[in-house]
Amino acid sequence: MAEAGSGGGDSTGALDPVEVAGRLIRCPSVTPAEGGAIDLLEQLLAPLGFACHRLRFEAPGTDPIENLYARIGTGGPHFCFAGHTDVVPVGDAAAWTVGPFEGEVRDGLLWGRGAADMKGGIAAFVAAASRVIAENDGTVPGSISLLITGDEEGPAVNGTTRVLDWMEANGEIPDACVVGEPTNPQVLGDMMKIGRRGSLTGRLTVHGTQGHVAYPHLAENPIHHLLRMLEPFAHGQLDEGTAHFPPSTLMVTTIDVGNPATNVVPARATAVFNIRFNDAHTSESLERMLRASFDQKGARYELTTECSGESFVTEPGALSSLVADAAEQVTGRRPELSTTGGTSDARFIKRLCPVVEFGLVGQTMHKVDERVPVADVRALTDIYAAMLRRFFA
Amino acid sequence: MAEAGSGGGDSTGALDPVEVAGRLIRCPSVTPAEGGAIDLLEQLLAPLGFACHRLRFEAPGTDPIENLYARIGTGGPHFCFAGHTDVVPVGDAAAWTVGPFEGEVRDGLLWGRGAADMKGGIAAFVAAASRVIAENDGTVPGSISLLITGDEEGPAVNGTTRVLDWMEANGEIPDACVVGEPTNPQVLGDMMKIGRRGSLTGRLTVHGTQGHVAYPHLAENPIHHLLRMLEPFAHGQLDEGTAHFPPSTLMVTTIDVGNPATNVVPARATAVFNIRFNDAHTSESLERMLRASFDQKGARYELTTECSGESFVTEPGALSSLVADAAEQVTGRRPELSTTGGTSDARFIKRLCPVVEFGLVGQTMHKVDERVPVADVRALTDIYAAMLRRFFA
Repeated sequence: MAEAGSGGGDSTGALDPVEVAGRLIRCPSVTPAEGGAIDLLEQLLAPLGFACHRLRFEAPGTDPIENLYARIGTGGPHFCFAGHTDVVPVGDAAAWTVGPFEGEVRDGLLWGRGAADMKGGIAAFVAAASRVIAENDGTVPGSISLLITGDEEGPAVNGTTRVLDWMEANGEIPDACVVGEPTNPQVLGDMMKIGRRGSLTGRLTVHGTQGHVAYPHLAENPIHHLLRMLEPFAHGQLDEGTAHFPPSTLMVTTIDVGNPATNVVPARATAVFNIRFNDAHTSESLERMLRASFDQKGARYELTTECSGESFVTEPGALSSLVADAAEQVTGRRPELSTTGGTSDARFIKRLCPVVEFGLVGQTMHKVDERVPVADVRALTDIYAAMLRRFFA
Repeated sequence: MAEAGSGGGDSTGALDPVEVAGRLIRCPSVTPAEGGAIDLLEQLLAPLGFACHRLRFEAPGTDPIENLYARIGTGGPHFCFAGHTDVVPVGDAAAWTVGPFEGEVRDGLLWGRGAADMKGGIAAFVAAASRVIAENDGTVPGSISLLITGDEEGPAVNGTTRVLDWMEANGEIPDACVVGEPTNPQVLGDMMKIGRRGSLTGRLTVHGTQGHVAYPHLAENPIHHLLRMLEPFAHGQLDEGTAHFPPSTLMVTTIDVGNPATNVVPARATAVFNIRFNDAHTSESLERMLRASFDQKGARYELTTECSGESFVTEPGALSSLVADAAEQVTGRRPELSTTGGTSDARFIKRLCPVVEFGLVGQTMHKVDERVPVADVRALTDIYAAMLRRFFA
């Protein structure tokens, strides 16, 4: 039924989200491969009136990445949708019920790698935008943009952060942004993400003095220092949580001494830990807190830390209400405002404008037989369309 | 001056301890090699009237070891001297001032591997015995025996324990025993050992549930369990010491997890620790105490222990007074009664009779340029002779 190059548009010119999602899944865009997915989006968006900017970034020691920034309209208000076309590897290809890059619909489900994370979400937004544009006779009362990266599942070096740099440099500052990650644990309408915890990894090396176990007064046991330094954190929780966040957690992930001699006190001991922290902390305040605590134990130690993202939150307000209202209108459920889970590109976008995340149900993401109900893709399209209409109202 | 096969004996037939020590050092008896040292002792003792029993023991997976049990006299009281002719390796041979197996006297010092630990001590006792035998016209008013092993510095499997088995089986039960280990920290007469701490090594494996650090409620961190289980022992001391012993100590010697992923909670963590314990404990009571403490933390764990020797003490009394009186008579110093340091074969001998240890100054033992003052070897001979005279008095 669909014409070549089309997304199965109806008579109004609006695209069919399931058709678009299937075509995106058929692009084997495992990070860092573009796989034809960015090309396809450009082919779909340009005829709708979007000005498309292909942004290819590279850096020493990293793979070059294809990204896309597309915008329709030049004035405000400016709504941005952010997403990624890259997908994680298929894992055990033989274990899939349906080929992971077939994009087949079977038993009311759309199967394939990226169906949930997040080609289905991108397709729903593109279809929703095409519908709103059709309703407005080929334009919008403001602007809609799409920030699409091919490097969210990978190192994220040549992806969203560099597109954001480009956007800032070109005065492309949205008023609000929704990231189409699969945020619903069970059912469409369950949950939106209004922030994410930060992540800090620490490496602690404690120094002692080697010696014989029979003469402990002549040695200084770095393992005993380490036990005293880390035990206060063994309950794994750094606070009681904040208004929008669960408690911050600290997990020691390894301790390694490597001393094979049972009669020798070793000279050093090392530990690595990871902290997932809420908005009661920054990576800087955490490092200060750790050092103050460690210093009390009187050992010689080195601590290095690496922060892969500060915590952030978009305070509940206009944007979260807009998304919640649209979701409730379509599903009858009002999404919980959550900050759980891992990291996403929302942590980068936050510097430009308020950002929340809402997409499909995430249960099968990153797994074999990733799939989503066709009805969910259509309902998400309705939600995104309702969201745009309310945004421009 | 000395005849072949002699120990440089004087006109009374008594041997010269420095001559004997030099000859013993010239036997390269690094464990498990006999090196001629046991042969030499047999050659020296037989002419003095000792009945010599060469005891060669072997066991699967171990080196065969030459040992010697020699006794003069058949009645009581029966005094036993215990020692070992085997020595530790020379280390950096090029770093020695005098060849480690030359047995040379230079600058009033006797140099060589084993000079202090413990060929000097054996030579002093053999010379002292020869002197007392000469004083008693070729006999003694009781018995003197020597329990000489070639496996004290090694695994100690085919050494003293098996000689003791043989002695028990043959009704050779001494009334008292002195081990000639170098017990004096600084000066001859400083210290005798009346016991030793026990040694217990424990291996602890704690099990958890692997998971992602971002979802700690779905994981169970075995490292955190381990921190809570071992931290109470991080001060390193298990008691305040007893009448004759310093405090028992616990040293964690290694913790190993080997988890390279900073975002993963591992499934297990292992630790090894060593306890040096006094007579307030046995290996059994310690294991009970450890399990009771670990159990309180509620983790799934496995603990295996290995005891290489229980603590023991020969209560201060007749034997320690005998040695102290003899040492004080010769040096003017009354030795401290100590239980410090590592293990020795006294831990095995304890099952047959009261045992204490007294020998040379141990400062250079196991080091490059091991050496002892010639005057100390002669003074120790005087002490051992005084000890024997008092024993038979």
